[in-house]
Amino acid sequence: MGGLTVLSALRAVMPAEDYLYLGDTARLPYGTKSAATVRRYATQAADQLVNRGVKALVVACNTASAFALQHLAAEFAPLPVFGVVQPGAVAAVEHADASGVLVVATESTIAGGAYQQALTALAPNVRVFGRACPLWVTLAEQGPQQEAFVAEVLMHALRGYVEQGPGTLLLGCTHFPVFKPLLQQLLPTVEVVDSAATTADAVYDALQHQGLLNQSPASSTGSVHFLATDGAGRFCQVGQYFLGETILDVELVDL
Amino acid sequence: MGGLTVLSALRAVMPAEDYLYLGDTARLPYGTKSAATVRRYATQAADQLVNRGVKALVVACNTASAFALQHLAAEFAPLPVFGVVQPGAVAAVEHADASGVLVVATESTIAGGAYQQALTALAPNVRVFGRACPLWVTLAEQGPQQEAFVAEVLMHALRGYVEQGPGTLLLGCTHFPVFKPLLQQLLPTVEVVDSAATTADAVYDALQHQGLLNQSPASSTGSVHFLATDGAGRFCQVGQYFLGETILDVELVDL
Repeated sequence: MGGLTVLSALRAVMPAEDYLYLGDTARLPYGTKSAATVRRYATQAADQLVNRGVKALVVACNTASAFALQHLAAEFAPLPVFGVVQPGAVAAVEHADASGVLVVATESTIAGGAYQQALTALAPNVRVFGRACPLWVTLAEQGPQQEAFVAEVLMHALRGYVEQGPGTLLLGCTHFPVFKPLLQQLLPTVEVVDSAATTADAVYDALQHQGLLNQSPASSTGSVHFLATDGAGRFCQVGQYFLGETILDVELVDL
Repeated sequence: MGGLTVLSALRAVMPAEDYLYLGDTARLPYGTKSAATVRRYATQAADQLVNRGVKALVVACNTASAFALQHLAAEFAPLPVFGVVQPGAVAAVEHADASGVLVVATESTIAGGAYQQALTALAPNVRVFGRACPLWVTLAEQGPQQEAFVAEVLMHALRGYVEQGPGTLLLGCTHFPVFKPLLQQLLPTVEVVDSAATTADAVYDALQHQGLLNQSPASSTGSVHFLATDGAGRFCQVGQYFLGETILDVELVDL
């Protein structure tokens, strides 16, 4: 579901492109699964998209990016394959100061250490902290809730970091941008960053560099076709919170 | 993971039996999936157990019981197949008064209406209320947390019911018994019931009736063998919160 926040950013930067979006709703969330299982599921999902003739693949899930990106890039070469972890790290180090970066993500993403590695590779001296926030994923999928309760759940996960903690909060899960305005309000001195916008910029740059951008006039609007592996009704209902607009048609596929 | 609360109750009633426990950890939670997908996954899981020669099958998940029980009973007849919804309803009507029963369960169980139907069939005049509590599932899998925060999440889901609400709270998800002591403390005038004990009693009665009970001396202890579809490490770690004891060995299986 969270990948829809990345789709939204991609369309803002490249409105003329056609998009094929696959949500593996039957088997979500990926954030509690092992690396091997995430790799297997991500490969099945990518197969479905590649067989339909996409010109590039965006792995719009932090857990899948962390565990499956290299595997997918090798498997489907020379197709360009993009993840969200590296762009998220780039966004964070732009703002990071001596107080460091706190990465909030799923259990598996934090345990796997991909963000910690990506951040350290970009800025060897940056202090990196990580915290798994599994409740945030479930909460995001409930749609709008009482703000005071949402604030309670968010701040509980950040206990021990607020006040004297890192000045940059990196949302390392594609579900979390729905909480960005509230987090920024609750933490006025902290810079809250996510990977959606920087991922879209990275994809744009690479496609332009490879001459793969759609050459239609800038004013034209491409199509979006949605695929899901289960619950088309729930996909439409929950998806609108993440995409920021109504989803009308979903094609069910079996991986 | 929640099915371990049912296993614990089964072993208390029938300690001499051997148990084969399968957790579909790769694809959990079932509580947000469609009826068709739950049926398909439950059938695959049951196949695995039946092929290993079990003498009876307990569907220790409310969502799977609600959507797949009839299908599994027909598919694997004459093998005895038990669910947890009917025993849960029996436990609730034992205590229900005019104020009615509040069923708390997953999104899918509530939306499917299985508890509402089972309760109404047993006690046509009982008032039944339902509320989906998806955050409780995620929270239960985190293991012990700050009690004040857990209380906050529990009570938030019950808003509008406490004080003048139903006098019986039916835990319609096998994850929720871990919250039973706290719920009973928070709601001293409410009767909090779950289906684990009544399921174990129903299985015992049926096996005895069919002459299928293990005839070993009452003092003997049967074996328990654990299967999981992903993350043996997480299964052991999280599982102990639900089972109430340490899990040492888990066999990974692919459905």
